[in-house]
Amino acid sequence: MSGIIVQKFGGTSVQSPERIKAVAGRIAATVERGHRVCAVISAMGQTTDELIELASQVSPDPPVREMDMLLTAGERISMALTCMALDALGHSAVSFTGSQAGVLTDPRHGKAMILDIQPDRVRAALDGGAIAVVAGFQGMSTDTKEITTLGRGGSDTSAVAMAAALGAEYCEIFTDVEGVFTADPRVVESARKLHVVSYDEMLEMASSGAKVLMLRSVEYARNHNVALHVRSSFVDSPGTWIRGEDERMERAIIAGITHDVTEAKVTLKGVPDQPGIAAKLFGDLAEAGVNVDMIVQNVSAEGHTDISFTVNRDEAKKAATLVAKIAGEIGANGYDLDETIAKVSLVGAGMRSHPGIAAKMFDVLASSSVNIEMISTSPIRISCVVHEKDATTAVNALHSAFELEAESALRDSHVGVERIDSGDEAESSSAGVA
Amino acid sequence: MSGIIVQKFGGTSVQSPERIKAVAGRIAATVERGHRVCAVISAMGQTTDELIELASQVSPDPPVREMDMLLTAGERISMALTCMALDALGHSAVSFTGSQAGVLTDPRHGKAMILDIQPDRVRAALDGGAIAVVAGFQGMSTDTKEITTLGRGGSDTSAVAMAAALGAEYCEIFTDVEGVFTADPRVVESARKLHVVSYDEMLEMASSGAKVLMLRSVEYARNHNVALHVRSSFVDSPGTWIRGEDERMERAIIAGITHDVTEAKVTLKGVPDQPGIAAKLFGDLAEAGVNVDMIVQNVSAEGHTDISFTVNRDEAKKAATLVAKIAGEIGANGYDLDETIAKVSLVGAGMRSHPGIAAKMFDVLASSSVNIEMISTSPIRISCVVHEKDATTAVNALHSAFELEAESALRDSHVGVERIDSGDEAESSSAGVA
Repeated sequence: MSGIIVQKFGGTSVQSPERIKAVAGRIAATVERGHRVCAVISAMGQTTDELIELASQVSPDPPVREMDMLLTAGERISMALTCMALDALGHSAVSFTGSQAGVLTDPRHGKAMILDIQPDRVRAALDGGAIAVVAGFQGMSTDTKEITTLGRGGSDTSAVAMAAALGAEYCEIFTDVEGVFTADPRVVESARKLHVVSYDEMLEMASSGAKVLMLRSVEYARNHNVALHVRSSFVDSPGTWIRGEDERMERAIIAGITHDVTEAKVTLKGVPDQPGIAAKLFGDLAEAGVNVDMIVQNVSAEGHTDISFTVNRDEAKKAATLVAKIAGEIGANGYDLDETIAKVSLVGAGMRSHPGIAAKMFDVLASSSVNIEMISTSPIRISCVVHEKDATTAVNALHSAFELEAESALRDSHVGVERIDSGDEAESSSAGVA
Repeated sequence: MSGIIVQKFGGTSVQSPERIKAVAGRIAATVERGHRVCAVISAMGQTTDELIELASQVSPDPPVREMDMLLTAGERISMALTCMALDALGHSAVSFTGSQAGVLTDPRHGKAMILDIQPDRVRAALDGGAIAVVAGFQGMSTDTKEITTLGRGGSDTSAVAMAAALGAEYCEIFTDVEGVFTADPRVVESARKLHVVSYDEMLEMASSGAKVLMLRSVEYARNHNVALHVRSSFVDSPGTWIRGEDERMERAIIAGITHDVTEAKVTLKGVPDQPGIAAKLFGDLAEAGVNVDMIVQNVSAEGHTDISFTVNRDEAKKAATLVAKIAGEIGANGYDLDETIAKVSLVGAGMRSHPGIAAKMFDVLASSSVNIEMISTSPIRISCVVHEKDATTAVNALHSAFELEAESALRDSHVGVERIDSGDEAESSSAGVA
């Protein structure tokens, strides 16, 4: 029997009856090429927002269980319509809610985690020659059998988890961008669509500003070794593959450059150099529900030190108030709050085996007169906090210095990977350059 | 523990966030009077029609399974919003889909019949002090575990079946009319709201033109002895009770007069008087999916007879075509089609023990110069087909001749029945006259 492909379509892909018919056409084309398809569908365009608005009109603080009951109506509508459109094209199709598809989650309404998928009914439909259309974003709690949602954007995770459970060949995420780029194409004109990135690279890119995929879905794909193909639902060219590293991938040094202008920097100044202060600071922040991203503490000079960290700008005032209070308690010199920062990150699995990348990055920024305010690194990422006004300069300078606009010799080896898709797309011989 | 009351709210009752808040207020008031409440909710106002319109935009002929999947999103939205509104009033409320509520049906999508209700989760919620809010109109098939709908108007049946399964004290159907009237108040100015009618009377009234309740829900109530209270969701006065007959009810002769202008009359003329012709005629009509209401065949004269029957006007042309064909086959004299008829019916359990009602009805119509074209009777109903233009005259003449505008001595005994409700409604001492 032919292999299974999971295809996920987001809200903009199914925002109108016309778009739903286009999605049905795409699914049908994949089936007609000899695949079995399980489609995972989000709610239509603005449905979720409209339902949230309705809820706000009947309650100032709707209970989370009922919110999940309400919002899951969204996918119910879009998946049934998708099946009808497939039926109109002459294809047998069966829709499944999260619970019918066996998507089992923990009981945390609005932010549930998938614990297991038992896709017996989905598999039976596929084995019977039908297209399975599964509601994204939703599941059922294992213990209480309550309807849950995974939180916004959870449909990506639904699709990846379904692909893992079905043993699918790969999982295609259709979205409103054409793939993963070497940098944000709105900022860097010569940004290039990547053929392939590794899970680890994608995780670092997603957590440092790339919006194309939800972090959780990439983690799930890595943990279950599900090959992802992120591509546009509006144009028919191949997108970007996200998969495990292999020897071909090791030759890529830098995958891309991301930037993030949604954070703020808080500095606690003149901290007495004694044990337990950092623990207290970040303990209090965690207790207050403030998510901290980068943390930098300089080497202590003369018994005092500065501690800087970044938080989401929405939480900056809250963090600053807390830090001011702690400063008083521990006898520090006060605090700074800077809400005009940008975090610029260089991501690439090749950094592990190529020393000197960090030095080159700092050098490029210095040559561009971009001042570095904070530095943080992982084995495959280097992030620099710079002034927000310098972000575009920094990203372009780095993109050019690391020659990311060119399909370099180091990357040529990836063309082979792209051929995973070549049976599927008439235009597969194209280079995939955006 | 206090008794359970099932309250059903239709689409117009929950058509907007404001109306949903009003419904929540009503449910809350019932709970505050010491009852446990299971509410059965329809989809909001136009939702079902909007979803049907969406379906028509993606498929000319949507598969019934997916249609049910689509339409059941409607109650999901309204029931979740109702729970949120109850929560905002400080009441704990839990919503249940048809399958969560244990509504088991046969597998006929779009027109499923309830086979059983296993309301374990609903009962647990009620026992736990919460208000249960159940989706009307929907269930799950016993064999294939597919989502089914009961067909439009099925929410009444959902409510009655839930009341039976929970052993509820009674089932209140909130709707856009104030109760069951002695005649259509739009036609008869002096029409009076009835305090109580028997199941059998209500069945005859529903099948002969009264729109207030779906036939199936009354049958279910009768078969499971569930007391119904039909009342307005817009005003707070008592409505009409529908329950089994008792000695107090036997004294009521006529419950009301109904009329129906949605039918047409077809006559097969000069039929040779030989066995098997009626069987062939109505066999062919049934095979063609034409629903026949009244059938009248006169005594044969000189070897030939006429067979007249009524059908819904939507199906009249189809029926006439079939009859023309049969007329040729059996050597009849042809056929007549009359699309301007009205059926006027007198309904009352007291007819059984009071002879002469039919004679009086014919006399009243004759005195009003209304010509009778067909007559059909049941033990508690007499229906006359008249010309459509005579319908208003006929209904008013009968209403007056049988003194239905007055709260007659024969009906005074029903006031006691109304007191079932007196603990619930501040205005219960009112006579309930519309």
